[in-house]
Amino acid sequence: MAILRIDGAHILTMANGNTDIHDGWTLEAVDGEITYVGPLEDLDPAGDPDESIDASGCLVMPGFVNAHTHTAMTLFRGSAGDMELQPWLEEKIWPIEARLTDDDVYWGSMLGFAEMLLAGVTCVNDMYYLPRVGTRAAMDCGIRMCPSGVILGIVPNAEDMLAEALQFTAEFAARDDLCIHPMLAPHAPYTCPRELLEQVVETAVEMHVPIHIHLAETEDNVRWSLDNYGARPVQAMERIGLFDARVCAAHCVHLDETDIEIIAERGVGVAHCPGSNLKLASGMAPSQSLVQRGAHVGLGTDGCGSNNNLDLLEEARLAALISKVREDDPTAVPAETALCMATLGGARAVFLDDCVGSLEVGKRCDCIVVDLDAPHLFPRHSLVSHLIYSAHASDVRDTIVDGRVVVRNRVLQTLDLDETVARAQESAERLFA
Amino acid sequence: MAILRIDGAHILTMANGNTDIHDGWTLEAVDGEITYVGPLEDLDPAGDPDESIDASGCLVMPGFVNAHTHTAMTLFRGSAGDMELQPWLEEKIWPIEARLTDDDVYWGSMLGFAEMLLAGVTCVNDMYYLPRVGTRAAMDCGIRMCPSGVILGIVPNAEDMLAEALQFTAEFAARDDLCIHPMLAPHAPYTCPRELLEQVVETAVEMHVPIHIHLAETEDNVRWSLDNYGARPVQAMERIGLFDARVCAAHCVHLDETDIEIIAERGVGVAHCPGSNLKLASGMAPSQSLVQRGAHVGLGTDGCGSNNNLDLLEEARLAALISKVREDDPTAVPAETALCMATLGGARAVFLDDCVGSLEVGKRCDCIVVDLDAPHLFPRHSLVSHLIYSAHASDVRDTIVDGRVVVRNRVLQTLDLDETVARAQESAERLFA
Repeated sequence: MAILRIDGAHILTMANGNTDIHDGWTLEAVDGEITYVGPLEDLDPAGDPDESIDASGCLVMPGFVNAHTHTAMTLFRGSAGDMELQPWLEEKIWPIEARLTDDDVYWGSMLGFAEMLLAGVTCVNDMYYLPRVGTRAAMDCGIRMCPSGVILGIVPNAEDMLAEALQFTAEFAARDDLCIHPMLAPHAPYTCPRELLEQVVETAVEMHVPIHIHLAETEDNVRWSLDNYGARPVQAMERIGLFDARVCAAHCVHLDETDIEIIAERGVGVAHCPGSNLKLASGMAPSQSLVQRGAHVGLGTDGCGSNNNLDLLEEARLAALISKVREDDPTAVPAETALCMATLGGARAVFLDDCVGSLEVGKRCDCIVVDLDAPHLFPRHSLVSHLIYSAHASDVRDTIVDGRVVVRNRVLQTLDLDETVARAQESAERLFA
Repeated sequence: MAILRIDGAHILTMANGNTDIHDGWTLEAVDGEITYVGPLEDLDPAGDPDESIDASGCLVMPGFVNAHTHTAMTLFRGSAGDMELQPWLEEKIWPIEARLTDDDVYWGSMLGFAEMLLAGVTCVNDMYYLPRVGTRAAMDCGIRMCPSGVILGIVPNAEDMLAEALQFTAEFAARDDLCIHPMLAPHAPYTCPRELLEQVVETAVEMHVPIHIHLAETEDNVRWSLDNYGARPVQAMERIGLFDARVCAAHCVHLDETDIEIIAERGVGVAHCPGSNLKLASGMAPSQSLVQRGAHVGLGTDGCGSNNNLDLLEEARLAALISKVREDDPTAVPAETALCMATLGGARAVFLDDCVGSLEVGKRCDCIVVDLDAPHLFPRHSLVSHLIYSAHASDVRDTIVDGRVVVRNRVLQTLDLDETVARAQESAERLFA
């Protein structure tokens, strides 16, 4: 039995999306499961802690959920910025992705996980090539992951890709690993023919795994869908039965009222990616309307090719800021809503809210300790406002995943950062040579 | 004679806005003036350095210029977010500002300067009450400042306010301090009657000091100007001769083509404040068009009441990101342009580009050392892209103002951070009690 204790903290549990903060509380976890959150005096300890964290004066809160990314694409960070989407993909990204080795994906993933863990991301929903390799990296460094092998229906090796993705997901679904939660990832409606999508839905329902897909990211996507399905992307997908499976849809930028209604009513998870959507000039998603209708909205960084970082706190800030100008309303997506998106909202969007996203007894212990000593976090009018509008990723001091301390005092405990950086740099140099 | 040497760095001089990076260069400054930037082997040293910085593997670049803020408003950080502008001002800000003491402004300013220096801001253009107090704080901690006492023409004590501001500016203009560059700050066209503005212009020209003013921040500002001057804000100010003085105009969100032409032709400095403009739902400024027309565009954080931090790197990222979606063009405001805005562009916007903004022989030595070790700065495809799209304020390791090391290894050398935080917290608690 492994006991973790965190004492003396301001604790934000995010239970039911509530952002109240409790001072001087204690958290206990046994074998990775939260067994107590509350005042120290009411704790009936499970035993002497094996691992103990003094969080006096710090904030303890749920770890961030990165609801959409392609982690190994850290290798592409800064390789080709400020470009149009199609030339960027066709000239810069695809030719190099075709040459990726296992080593590239492993060290690219490790570099991304290192960055995320240091920034307080405890759970990541990932769609990429060679999912076995990325998953091995996640298990090695101890981040919670929803892995999926990307499925493209319009490439020469489509059948192999599908078979490999299905086999990977079946295998990991059967394992019932506490930290690996596989999905199936048809890339997008415009890259996966209808029959393929229907087959994926059927398999996802059979395997009890969710689907991870790009949806309504650009105006081009909408035009394509109108041309090919006679309906906008969300409505087209509703019509072919996609939402009979649990679906986490990344982007959802271009939605009309009917689309928003469908997303809310069918329980579709939304991975809102404001940074990527701005950088690629895709647009600003109607996250305020989605939240108001009760949709489950989380946040994603997207891949480092188009962001260019994996900082979920920055995504939360962007979500709050751009909604105000999009809606012409400074009260849109307030700090509390953005913070919920970054944690419980993300857990809901990836269908893990019975497991993580808030600090409640019975859930797995994914949490972070935020150092509140920096001048940009004073004076202390509102910690929630400070988190969203002023905190930096570097204010995260400790990161705990499934009860395991993976970052302590800003140092990664589960991977060698120097080796990771060096190996990722080597891969990048070889790929771009 | 005080000699500073920085060795072994990647140096980005930003001379003429060029963002090339030179590896393994050396910088020397004597009594605060840059005497050498170039390869070590070509240096003819002025003598043994009194202060020496090993910047091996780091990036050395000009410090950031915060071209528009109200520093002491750090006391308001997080006190009232996610609100409409008018109720925010009328219910939350103005009643408290009316009670500000010297101590409040001093410690509020110190807290803001601490945050800025740690984040690599070396020069700040400040408009606020009790300018003598804020300036004393700047001199105590060693940040470069363009101070000005705000002038409001529509308050009961308008005459006193004007007299105090004029006297302050006259006094500091006469001092010719190397680090204090006073301005005159009529708040905005809608708060300063025409006669007052004309008087300020005349005085500014006589004193050889620039003017710092809010301009075209909101749609309401435009309506007010059309109603009262029969012209949009920039055109109205052109008509009354405001630009006969050198003017740094904050915000400039709502501009038409004629406005942009006037700004470019009259050499008006623009302090673009994307974070504040998003948070208050003011809009997105046409910074891409301004730059294309040759206007001098810098970046400002605005006050912490409406931002809520003083992180200029974040403003640079926002400037790059929002321009892409505003222009529907992912190539708008590329990383190089945003980085120039944050440094040389800001120096131009506050009329200090003969003094700072780039690392060139003869300029004052305001520079920062950026630690490049963090995983979010790998792989090394493009450092300029990494700075704008991925770096954190916390990557700044050392900050040098006028040849003086004010931050070393992320520790402030010129102020007691614990005392500053405690005194600012006390002020905030008293003001908001």
